[in-house]
Amino acid sequence: MIIQLEKNCSLTEKEATLSYLKSLKFSITEVKTQSGDYLVCIGKSEFDIRNIGNLPGVSDVHIVSDNYKLVSKKWKVKNTEINLGDNVIIGGNTPSIMAGPCSLESEEQMQKIITHLLKNNIKILRGGVFKPRSSPYAFRGAGIEGLKMMKQITEPHGIKIITEVMQVSQIEEMMPYVDVFQVGARNSQNFNLLDALGEIDKPVMIKRGISGTIEELLYSAEYVFSKGNEKLLLCERGIRTFETAYRNTFDINAIQVLKEKSHLPVIADPSHGVGIRDYVAKLALASLISGADGVIYEVHEKPEEAISDGQQTLNFFESDQLNSKINLLKAVNVFT
Amino acid sequence: MIIQLEKNCSLTEKEATLSYLKSLKFSITEVKTQSGDYLVCIGKSEFDIRNIGNLPGVSDVHIVSDNYKLVSKKWKVKNTEINLGDNVIIGGNTPSIMAGPCSLESEEQMQKIITHLLKNNIKILRGGVFKPRSSPYAFRGAGIEGLKMMKQITEPHGIKIITEVMQVSQIEEMMPYVDVFQVGARNSQNFNLLDALGEIDKPVMIKRGISGTIEELLYSAEYVFSKGNEKLLLCERGIRTFETAYRNTFDINAIQVLKEKSHLPVIADPSHGVGIRDYVAKLALASLISGADGVIYEVHEKPEEAISDGQQTLNFFESDQLNSKINLLKAVNVFT
Amino acid sequence: MIIQLEKNCSLTEKEATLSYLKSLKFSITEVKTQSGDYLVCIGKSEFDIRNIGNLPGVSDVHIVSDNYKLVSKKWKVKNTEINLGDNVIIGGNTPSIMAGPCSLESEEQMQKIITHLLKNNIKILRGGVFKPRSSPYAFRGAGIEGLKMMKQITEPHGIKIITEVMQVSQIEEMMPYVDVFQVGARNSQNFNLLDALGEIDKPVMIKRGISGTIEELLYSAEYVFSKGNEKLLLCERGIRTFETAYRNTFDINAIQVLKEKSHLPVIADPSHGVGIRDYVAKLALASLISGADGVIYEVHEKPEEAISDGQQTLNFFESDQLNSKINLLKAVNVFT
Amino acid sequence: MIIQLEKNCSLTEKEATLSYLKSLKFSITEVKTQSGDYLVCIGKSEFDIRNIGNLPGVSDVHIVSDNYKLVSKKWKVKNTEINLGDNVIIGGNTPSIMAGPCSLESEEQMQKIITHLLKNNIKILRGGVFKPRSSPYAFRGAGIEGLKMMKQITEPHGIKIITEVMQVSQIEEMMPYVDVFQVGARNSQNFNLLDALGEIDKPVMIKRGISGTIEELLYSAEYVFSKGNEKLLLCERGIRTFETAYRNTFDINAIQVLKEKSHLPVIADPSHGVGIRDYVAKLALASLISGADGVIYEVHEKPEEAISDGQQTLNFFESDQLNSKINLLKAVNVFT
Repeated sequence: MIIQLEKNCSLTEKEATLSYLKSLKFSITEVKTQSGDYLVCIGKSEFDIRNIGNLPGVSDVHIVSDNYKLVSKKWKVKNTEINLGDNVIIGGNTPSIMAGPCSLESEEQMQKIITHLLKNNIKILRGGVFKPRSSPYAFRGAGIEGLKMMKQITEPHGIKIITEVMQVSQIEEMMPYVDVFQVGARNSQNFNLLDALGEIDKPVMIKRGISGTIEELLYSAEYVFSKGNEKLLLCERGIRTFETAYRNTFDINAIQVLKEKSHLPVIADPSHGVGIRDYVAKLALASLISGADGVIYEVHEKPEEAISDGQQTLNFFESDQLNSKINLLKAVNVFT
Repeated sequence: MIIQLEKNCSLTEKEATLSYLKSLKFSITEVKTQSGDYLVCIGKSEFDIRNIGNLPGVSDVHIVSDNYKLVSKKWKVKNTEINLGDNVIIGGNTPSIMAGPCSLESEEQMQKIITHLLKNNIKILRGGVFKPRSSPYAFRGAGIEGLKMMKQITEPHGIKIITEVMQVSQIEEMMPYVDVFQVGARNSQNFNLLDALGEIDKPVMIKRGISGTIEELLYSAEYVFSKGNEKLLLCERGIRTFETAYRNTFDINAIQVLKEKSHLPVIADPSHGVGIRDYVAKLALASLISGADGVIYEVHEKPEEAISDGQQTLNFFESDQLNSKINLLKAVNVFT
Repeated sequence: MIIQLEKNCSLTEKEATLSYLKSLKFSITEVKTQSGDYLVCIGKSEFDIRNIGNLPGVSDVHIVSDNYKLVSKKWKVKNTEINLGDNVIIGGNTPSIMAGPCSLESEEQMQKIITHLLKNNIKILRGGVFKPRSSPYAFRGAGIEGLKMMKQITEPHGIKIITEVMQVSQIEEMMPYVDVFQVGARNSQNFNLLDALGEIDKPVMIKRGISGTIEELLYSAEYVFSKGNEKLLLCERGIRTFETAYRNTFDINAIQVLKEKSHLPVIADPSHGVGIRDYVAKLALASLISGADGVIYEVHEKPEEAISDGQQTLNFFESDQLNSKINLLKAVNVFT
Repeated sequence: MIIQLEKNCSLTEKEATLSYLKSLKFSITEVKTQSGDYLVCIGKSEFDIRNIGNLPGVSDVHIVSDNYKLVSKKWKVKNTEINLGDNVIIGGNTPSIMAGPCSLESEEQMQKIITHLLKNNIKILRGGVFKPRSSPYAFRGAGIEGLKMMKQITEPHGIKIITEVMQVSQIEEMMPYVDVFQVGARNSQNFNLLDALGEIDKPVMIKRGISGTIEELLYSAEYVFSKGNEKLLLCERGIRTFETAYRNTFDINAIQVLKEKSHLPVIADPSHGVGIRDYVAKLALASLISGADGVIYEVHEKPEEAISDGQQTLNFFESDQLNSKINLLKAVNVFT
């Protein structure tokens, strides 16, 4: 059960509500987010929901049968929109495009990519500065200095930055330079990181685990939301299966399932979803036509020279073409 | 290596070619299909390809590095088209739609479905009369008499029939009533059935195994082709993974991979691919935008009353809407 | 629900029972096996079980909540024993060992393997003559003549033969030469083959599908049993997962689960279960200690020269050592 | 390539070696562990290994073709032993048993479990105080105070503690009370945590990811080793597959593969490996007979009342019986 408190709910009213709920043997989590105060109640008591709805200070009550609560569409039917400022909105009527290199490499690289984004009217730059790598001997990113440089270059153009955070201790230093924090697939169940991201006021995109279930992804989002941050995005990026013909099996079913179960925006990552350049563009279109609120993909002036993930990175020409097709489809209103 | 023989290659010429190939230690399979005579040569000998190309009676020679040969795009770059007659062509410029109930139930049901197909200009009816079921106690289909009835009803309208064959002994009795034989996921590696279907002159659509690899699907097609039948379609219908939020994980990546590796038409089955009615239509569109040559889906007047698979079956209204969207997308030329 | 009829149940009594069951809206399958007559009733009616138990001609009634019925331990608590004659019993107190080459190759090979089996007191020879192969160009077995030769060589020694049957049409010709028919992983849901094997009086071992669930394996056994053959063995042979460090992921959990859910003997195939020779012996021991009723493994005088599966085949010395260890463990009574 | 430096290698000698290696275009990681100084060299240069081996200060040089280096058996053939003090050694000739509750609950619980461990001569207590849980609303452990209490109770008996660490910031406060840090399956690729654990001098056991490959597990261990901590244990705890009959698919093949590829001790976790109490004991025996250096399992006085994981926890009687069987098998020397 989720109880929404009124904006001007007094402390006394809240205490009275809590005490009534405790008498019903509920385990209660108090959640204060950017846009509201909630009481999440876990338990199996029988009760008359009207008795709660009529309590002073209570604005609304919802029974949520899902195991995750705050991220469920069962209490919040309207889709969540995330506003990054400068009219950059995720989860609205038009698909969001996020593009950029796997890793930040140099200022020159950034300048070129910005030009490419501007040309295609893309408002969100992706680019890693902290890179999770299977091997300790691989390139692990340009670090915080790289991020500062990204910010310096993108800011004058109103372009927003999404980049991966790998550990709690990075959050604070990254804060001023990041518009959306990305939690990578390998950290999808790093609960301490999720807790910490629940305490900030910046959007967070959570990637599905390498073999995470859809329910686990929603639970991970619930971690962040229940700590107070409801600016959340979910990302499908492919799962691990027996098939070895490509890097990951993109789970296109997950897009529709997530959209039905949750009110949060859903982003598709076709680059990781298949891992092979030639297949990325069509996979992006297929994701959007399935109802994704946006796509995040890798693009680089010369993919074959990229430090990482070049094999799944579009070049500028391919990216131009993809955006033309997206615009064509937008024009005929099939993304609904 | 695949050697194409000339139409008028004489027996003597062929013998000379075979004897030369044997001298190179090749293991040779002679294949005679509806449209040509081939020698498939397996081996690792070093040789000058021109020596073979110049042999009398040889029309062309191709090195094919894939393990499957005849179904590979490495020797036949042009996509295969399957002509079912009455201008019903699969694999051409326009997506093929195959629709109908999971199981044939009654003549009345057939009449209604035919009306629905005609309304939407759908030329191929799907409908099972032999049903593979996990449990021996479940409904196993209307059998050959049902198939005869289907034929009687569809024929006057020029509508073609695709239906599943489960065993060798059914092929002959089904022949007069079937336009495309379907090999189901559970029979995807029933090699005796594949061998037998290689000896007939009717198109065969092979579904990917429940956890079959893409390569295994191509090998299964190679079985049929190498026995003499090159009228083949491949079908992606979802694979088995750890995710339990839906019936199967539709492997949308497979469509592009199959189109790149093989010259055979690729059909998507969104009904089995997700197993939940509400998600079928968008999955069909996503498949087509990924490059599928067609879709096969389940439709029924009253899905909730269908004998089998009702939970993944569209009703007529949903099917109408799907076809409108397909037509809209065809009009803007995104299926290419 | 399973109803066991008395041996001397009269036709009139049976008809009365059937008619009573039909009045309860049950769907009934009559099953006549080597050891009894059963009525398998599917339905959700409410009724007093005593009313059925007291009917003339009824010997026993069991409610079976599993979806599979006849193979369930819920009605037959005692483990099934399969007697192959000559005191060769599977499913009794002592583990059964089945060993031999992947494929039958020559008479000389057979003579050597027989000597090896006799030395180790192994009573069941495995050896394929019909081989399912992914590629149509691979070796597909020595065929029926090979099987006849196997029989000729083993019979004087009281050694029994287990070998794979691939299609319905082979059953009859194989009958005189086979002691246990094996259904391979790829045919695990070839329902027509299972039906046909249900109509013979010879033991059948069904391998789990390449990604078959435990429940599907039990259903496949139910197919055979419900057609009249209750001489059944189940075989765990590894499943397909994301891991590529070995051929299959041996599902050791399945052994205990199958033993709990079913009364049928469970055999482990460590050769296919891991696919790497060095790991086969320990995997065999681990299977037996988990409760398997036996193991089936590949052994060859010179594995590196075997026509197929050499990489997972033990040589004679390794096989000797494995049997010594099995005997050591038998002596301390850990296989219980 | 791994270069071992001599204990008394001088700075000048080391610099000379480094400079020679750089001239060969190697990328070098300097590693200083508890027992040695290593240079891990990544690169593809051609060179004469003797030229390196003969450099002053160099004690040994090994070419390691695996992608992971320091954890590979290719340079260190002898198995690693981890000495926890008080003669508690992991990786020696006798299997290590680690047992205890999923979560620490109370002092009374601890007293009872200690009595049980002493009775069975078990030297290592497992017990979680920081619990990773899918849902933010679930019990998340007794925390550091719980750990202190565990230490107080176990220390007088010479019993060692293994417990899970979830984030970098916990390491320091946990240090005085922990004998082996456990990295859980969900943190298996939390690279920052692995880095931090590489900088301490306490043993670390890394669990395989929920669908981590064997290679990824070895890479995760390489992270820790390459930062300076070579006191490492690997743990197989089951993987995620399509099968839903139990919690995880225990990958018994992995034990033998890990033992062959790495010199590190391998521990099996049969409790998580199957997730069902009745199957845990046999799975423990099967793991040991496959070559595991030890087992870690859950035991509780009253599993049905345990705060977490009760369904996979043995009671004292079952645990006694398991240890009797382990002792019986030790006596006949099958664990080798």
